[in-house]
Formats: sequence, C-alpha cells, structure tokens
Amino acid sequence: MQTKRTTVYRHTDLTRLLHPSSVAVIGASTRAGSFGERVLHNLQHYGGRVYPVNSRYERLGEQKCYPNIGALPEVPDCAVVTAPREAVEEIVVECAAAGLGGVIVFASGYAETGKDERIAQQQRLAAIARESGMRIVGPNCIGVVNAPLDMRVTFMDITPIPAPRKHAIGMVSQSGALGMAVAQAVVRGVSFSHVLTSGNSCDVDMADYISYLADDPSCAAIACVFEGMAEPERMLVAAERAWQRDKPLIVFKMATGEQGAAAAMSHTGSLAGTHAAYRAVFRRAGAILVEDFEALAETAAFFAKARPPKARGVAVVAASGGAAIMAADRAEQFEVPLPQPSDAVRDVLMTHIPEFGSARNPCDVTAQILANPESLNACADALLGDQAYGALVVPQTYGYAPSAKRIPVYDSLAAKHGKIVCLAWQTEWLEGPGVREAEESEHVAFFRSMPSCFAALPRVLHPANATRPGRQRLSLRLSIRGKRRRR
Amino acid sequence: MQTKRTTVYRHTDLTRLLHPSSVAVIGASTRAGSFGERVLHNLQHYGGRVYPVNSRYERLGEQKCYPNIGALPEVPDCAVVTAPREAVEEIVVECAAAGLGGVIVFASGYAETGKDERIAQQQRLAAIARESGMRIVGPNCIGVVNAPLDMRVTFMDITPIPAPRKHAIGMVSQSGALGMAVAQAVVRGVSFSHVLTSGNSCDVDMADYISYLADDPSCAAIACVFEGMAEPERMLVAAERAWQRDKPLIVFKMATGEQGAAAAMSHTGSLAGTHAAYRAVFRRAGAILVEDFEALAETAAFFAKARPPKARGVAVVAASGGAAIMAADRAEQFEVPLPQPSDAVRDVLMTHIPEFGSARNPCDVTAQILANPESLNACADALLGDQAYGALVVPQTYGYAPSAKRIPVYDSLAAKHGKIVCLAWQTEWLEGPGVREAEESEHVAFFRSMPSCFAALPRVLHPANATRPGRQRLSLRLSIRGKRRRR
Repeated sequence: MQTKRTTVYRHTDLTRLLHPSSVAVIGASTRAGSFGERVLHNLQHYGGRVYPVNSRYERLGEQKCYPNIGALPEVPDCAVVTAPREAVEEIVVECAAAGLGGVIVFASGYAETGKDERIAQQQRLAAIARESGMRIVGPNCIGVVNAPLDMRVTFMDITPIPAPRKHAIGMVSQSGALGMAVAQAVVRGVSFSHVLTSGNSCDVDMADYISYLADDPSCAAIACVFEGMAEPERMLVAAERAWQRDKPLIVFKMATGEQGAAAAMSHTGSLAGTHAAYRAVFRRAGAILVEDFEALAETAAFFAKARPPKARGVAVVAASGGAAIMAADRAEQFEVPLPQPSDAVRDVLMTHIPEFGSARNPCDVTAQILANPESLNACADALLGDQAYGALVVPQTYGYAPSAKRIPVYDSLAAKHGKIVCLAWQTEWLEGPGVREAEESEHVAFFRSMPSCFAALPRVLHPANATRPGRQRLSLRLSIRGKRRRR
Repeated sequence: MQTKRTTVYRHTDLTRLLHPSSVAVIGASTRAGSFGERVLHNLQHYGGRVYPVNSRYERLGEQKCYPNIGALPEVPDCAVVTAPREAVEEIVVECAAAGLGGVIVFASGYAETGKDERIAQQQRLAAIARESGMRIVGPNCIGVVNAPLDMRVTFMDITPIPAPRKHAIGMVSQSGALGMAVAQAVVRGVSFSHVLTSGNSCDVDMADYISYLADDPSCAAIACVFEGMAEPERMLVAAERAWQRDKPLIVFKMATGEQGAAAAMSHTGSLAGTHAAYRAVFRRAGAILVEDFEALAETAAFFAKARPPKARGVAVVAASGGAAIMAADRAEQFEVPLPQPSDAVRDVLMTHIPEFGSARNPCDVTAQILANPESLNACADALLGDQAYGALVVPQTYGYAPSAKRIPVYDSLAAKHGKIVCLAWQTEWLEGPGVREAEESEHVAFFRSMPSCFAALPRVLHPANATRPGRQRLSLRLSIRGKRRRR
C-alpha cells in the first residue's frame, strides 16, 4: 500500500515534522472529546508555538483561532489534521502549497478498508508528499510524541512523558495503541524520548522513524513494534543506520501467523510478510528481536543503559535460594556463563554468607539479610569487582519498603565497577518499592521476567561488543556483515 | 533427604498444624528483628489463641509469656520454633511429648549444607515426626499463612492477605521467598487462601500440602512452585487427589537444568530429578504446567475462576487493531480456534463498528470507542451470546481511569452468559486502573501476558471439560489415565 520508495528519510528530512518550532491544529475545537479539542489539550505544555485553525471560530478559549493555514503569522513547521477523511485531501494540498514541513493525519478509512477507491485516496496523499517534499504521517494513526519538546500531537488521553533521561528509549510503532501501551511504562519510571506511530504509513513509515531516531541525541535505544511493510529492504537500511550509530534497535514483530497477517492487512493495510523473512532482515542488520511483547520495554531499557562489557560471565546474588535456582536455569537455557568467583572474592563472600547459604555463583545470602542487611551489598560489591563478570543479576523476590533503599547502592556499585546490575523482579507486586528507583537509575536495569533478562544479557556481554566504544552487535552479526560487503 | 514415606497426608492429618485453634510461639521475643518478635507481630490479627513461650520473660508487652510448653493452659494445636538449630531438637521432642498437632521449624543449616551430621540431625527430626504422629514443617522454611484465620506464622515482613474470595488460590512452595513473591499479587487484588512453604520438608512436603488444599474448601485452585523431591511418585498421588476433587493444580517446576539442580540441592537439599520426568508425572496427573514463573499467578487465578465451558471457540474484541493481531498470533500458536460469529451476531457488530474496523473475529472496534464508549460493551455482549464461543478475550492496551469502569460490565456480561472474560493487559502501566477490579471479579480473569492467556484457554475450553460438573482435564489426560488404569 505504501508508495515504492528506495530511500529512507534522514533526520534532517523529518526535523520540521517531528521536532517543530510551531504546530498548527487544523480542526481545533473546544467540543469535549473531539480530536481537535484533545490535541489542543495535549499540546498545552508544548515548548513551541501552537496555532489553532478552524474557520468556524475566531477564538478558542483564550487562544486566537485562524480561519486557514494562509492566515497564520508564519508558515508552521508541522500541522495536525483532525478533520474527517472527506476533508483531509484538500487540507493536505493547502499545507503542501504553504510550505509546511509535515502533516499528521488521524483520519481512518483508507487502504485498511481494502476498498479500491480508498486505496487510491491514500495513494493521492502519498503523491502529494512525494511531489511537494512535505512529509505526511498517517493516515489512520494516533500521532506522535516528542518528549524533549513535550509535544503530544495525539488525540489519546495520554500519560504525560517527562523530559528524557540519558537512557531514554525512542518508541516506534505502526499500531498507535501498542506504542502508547509500551510508553505507559513512564508510570513506573521508564524514560522515553519519543512515541512515533505510523498507522497506514502513506509516506513516513517505520523505517523512516528508526532512521530519524538513529540520529537523534535524545534516545539511547530504539524500541519497535512492527507489523509489516511493502518493502522490507527499507527496514534493513534503517536498522543498518541505527547499527552504524551504535544505537540498539529492539524489535517485537507481530502478525507472525496467517490469522495475524490477515488482521494486519485490515489494521494498517500492511503486508505482514513471513515471520522468518523479517527475522532474517532484522538479524542481518544487527537488531535485537524479542519474542514477547512484554519483553520489549524492559529489553530496550536494558540496552539503553548497557555499557561495553568487561567480561562475558554473569554473577547472580540473591537472598532467596529459589530465585538463585531460577537464575541458574535461565542462564543454562540462554547459554550465559556463570563462572565461579576467584578465591579472593569467594573469601569475601564467605565472611558474609552463613554456612547454609551459598558462597558460590549463583550466590545465596539467604534470608539472613533480614538480620544483616549489609551482607547483600557487600557480596554485590565483591562480585562486581571480580574480573570474571560483566554484569550482576539480583533477583528481587519480595517488595517491601526497605528494598527501594538498596537500588541507589546497586547503582553506585555498578558505576564504580563500570558494569550493570540487572534487577530481576520476581514478586507479583508488579510496581512495588524499588521499581521506580531501578528504572530511573543509570546503571540498574529492571526486568520483570528472568527469561527476558537472560535472553538479553548475552547480546550485550558478547566479547565483540568490547572492541569498540559504544554498543555493538554479536560477532555472528559482524561476520554476516563482512560477507555481505565482500559481495 | 526426606524420609521415605509412601502415604501422603490427608486434610485431617494436617488440620491441627495448618488450621490451628491455638499457636505457641517458642522463642517469643520483643527484640526488634528477631524471629520471635516478627512472628508475634504477624500473629496479631490471628483468629485463634497465641501463647508466647520463652523462659527468659514473664510478660512480653501486654501478653503473658510462658516458660515452656508444659506451662501453657492448654496443649496448643501448633507451635512455631523460632530458636536456632542447636536448640530445635530438644524443643521438638518436648512438643511431641506434649501432644501438639504440629510444629514449624525456621532454623536453617540442616541437609541443605550437605554435611553428614546435619543430614543426620534433619533425619532425627523426621524420626520424631514419624514416631510421635506430630507433624513438622521445615526445617529451613519461612512458615505458613492461613488467610481464613489470618494466621501468619512467618518471620517475613509479610503483606497482609485478606479473607479469601470464592476464587482464592492456595499457594504452595518449597522456596519460601518465591511462594511469598507470588502471593504478593494480593497487592493488586488476587485472592489467596494459603501460602504454605515447606523448606527442607523433613516431614510435611509439597505433596502433603497439595493433598491438604485439595480437600480445603477455601481455595478454588492450587498454585505450586516446585524444585524437586526424593519421591516423585508422592507428587503423583497428591496431584491425583487434586484432580479427583476438581481442583486445578498449576505448577511451575524449576531446577530444570544441571546448574539449577545443583543449586536446588544446596537450597533445600532436594533432588531436582529430570525436568522431563517431572513434566510427565504432572501431566499424567492432570496438572497444568506453566513454563514461566510470571505465568503462575495469572494462570492459577484464571483456573480458579473458570467454569465448565460452553464451547471451544474464543472471541476477541479489542479497541486496538494491533492488539487484535497479537491475539490472533497467539491463538494460532496455541491452536485456539477463533471461529467467525454467526450472521446475527455479525449484524450486531456491524452496527457498532466503523467501516475501518473489523466486525469479524478478532473484532476491532477501533479508537472510535473514545467517541462511542458503549460500542465495546455492546460488541462484548453480542460475542459472549454467540454459541460458538466459550470465552471472550479483551486486550487492554491503555490504562486510564475510565477503563476500570468497564470491568464490572464485563463481569456481569460474563455472568449473564455463563462464560469467562479474559482481560489481556497489554499496557506497561502494570497496575493501572482496572487491574484490581479485574482480579476481584468473579468472571473476569486478568492476564499480563497474551501468550499465558492463550496457553491457558485450551486447557479450560476443551470439550472434555464440559461433560462433568466442575473442572476437568484434557482428553489427552483422560486417555492416559485410562491406559494407566488398564495396566
């Protein structure tokens, strides 16, 4: 359904659209629940200039309202078209003629209906973009969020996204709802720079978004919920670009089966393609694939915090023998080495661990930490100091207030040793004490799932990632690149 | 490490231990952080009589303290021994002589150390139990919780567990920390009747606990975190007993690999056995195995709420096309049929769904529900009324306040049609609005993971489960039973 296009937009091609100094809201309104009202509401803290446009009003609340794009005091960088489908094309033509950088179209009822005239209608939008150089997001999308600008161009009743931290995630998704679903991790402290949804992608698509974020300084990793597209090779170009910039790209691919692929066609008019083909494309480009939607946010947050590894081995320290067993199970499953500590480190562990614990790896300090709370920290310090380990996994089996106080300790220990601590959250108190502290820490990664944690670790700790500053991919990946280049 | 024992205790064998009218706290104390102080604190709302026992005190706060078991005004049903290992054996002998129903031993340092004299020490405890008829829980355990009595015999700083609902889960675990970790789902509204931890299981073990809960009216399903045991056939007997009582048994088996098995030996002195062998044992007995620890609580809660199915098919209704695709993907993966609705139901759906949605199964009402909030409820009602469906899956992609109001609607619709609604929670706001309402509803099951949801559905909806009141197992299971009986 997308127009054939071989190039993938670069950051500068999309800057006016996605990082605008001014936004026009076409179809602005005060009617509660209308798209125009919702967008105006969501833009109230936006760092740029907002221009309500609606010929029916001279004012909207305290704001001046303009009859059309031509009446604005400047040519805005970006406009959002909240009008119904019937009115969209004329507005988009007008915006292109006025020289806007980009428009965002919410209206549905295009290619996703499968009807010929609606497909043609979408193709006309694509042609306007192609011929004018103005970029178009959508149609059939829920918009975009740029956290550094607090620009929320969406009709969703969206959770505000605070200014991004150093380890922020850039989120891209064809499905608006699923992109926003992941981004709601902000509620527990996960940092996001953008939520970019593409809907039917008549012009700007997932590949363009990834390319944009690859060159955007506000995110440290890119998370992607992906259905499919007409030209998978575009995704390869975008993923390559992210890889070149040392920006990890973490992908959840859906529409993996026949039923899902059929649903995707009716959802965003996307060709899902075979799951195997896409996996190959992403792997070849060094992207990290997650098998479960639930693993996306935590895996992306981990990669956003990871540093070049100092060793391939992983240490585990727990106050629960059961959790230590689960860690060992998953290490074996995902082929993560759990080497034993050096004699010197073992001696330190033995001074803190009772005889019925385990001064080995995995290390079990036992429930004795209730009587001796410092023992866990001392063991964590010793293990992080052992050159056999590139990361430390700390299963957290119980949520209670004192747990939260350990997080800054883990964070400073990880920083001191230049390594990362993975908090493997085992309690069903899903947002218990310590979760927010972990998400907000620069050197502590939060995993709700032990399998997700041990699936992600070898991707970061592989020796190939230590040879160059910044993040790299598996040597498997490097050799495939090498082969491709020799052709 | 366990004493060889062929019988599995029945409910009456364990009633005085697990549902006592009186509990003696041996080693009671007011020293902050001590086991004795913590247990007394946790028993403050217990519905029975508490007797602090410690020869060093005449009073503890406002309570009279007794010098020894013999000095109590009655023979208590149960005692908890908070003393260190060196003092345990003498106390246990004294309790047995006094005629107690059971004792719970916290002390560690027995068989899990791997030392011969400690193994012998544990075996002597087992011998006391065997010879006296007094039951012993532990050693090396964190205790037990009985929610109907609000009896919390544990030293953990435990989240209070409210009185169980009709769909309460009985939780059993060798690892105390992991049992409590699952039970912390109470924070979001999951109902539990018991948390029973067994530690080294010198006498009472996991099989006995399961047998007890099979006959206990306060739980509707049993959740089990299991490492391993010396005699797996005991687990088969217990699981059979649960099956006979139509009480679903949901098991997470850990120590699946070599490293994990080694850790299990050092944790509770358990023989992990091969994963495959245990899987066979559990499957043969009709238990439901989950592959991920995170799936245990939600799968058990689902089985606790499930009714005999009216059909094998599943309907999906979402306000997000992306979520509909993910549901279709997982239905295919787990071979759950998603039949199309009848013409009559389809006509109803079409009156509520815009042309760019999908009036099929999976059904996508689209973001139009923002403008027309009732459409989702109307579609849910129509789909639940279609005889092709035994259950309805509703993906929830976004957490915002109005979502919570839909839960009672789903609950009453499910009740009206005698079916279950599964809320597939896709947002990363893990405890957002609606989670508690769903957990507390009798006919709405909460799943944090779409794969867990579609893995569980066919176990409930299989036609074999409709032939007999109450819950049954897969026909696979029935045929295996048949074969076994013919031998």
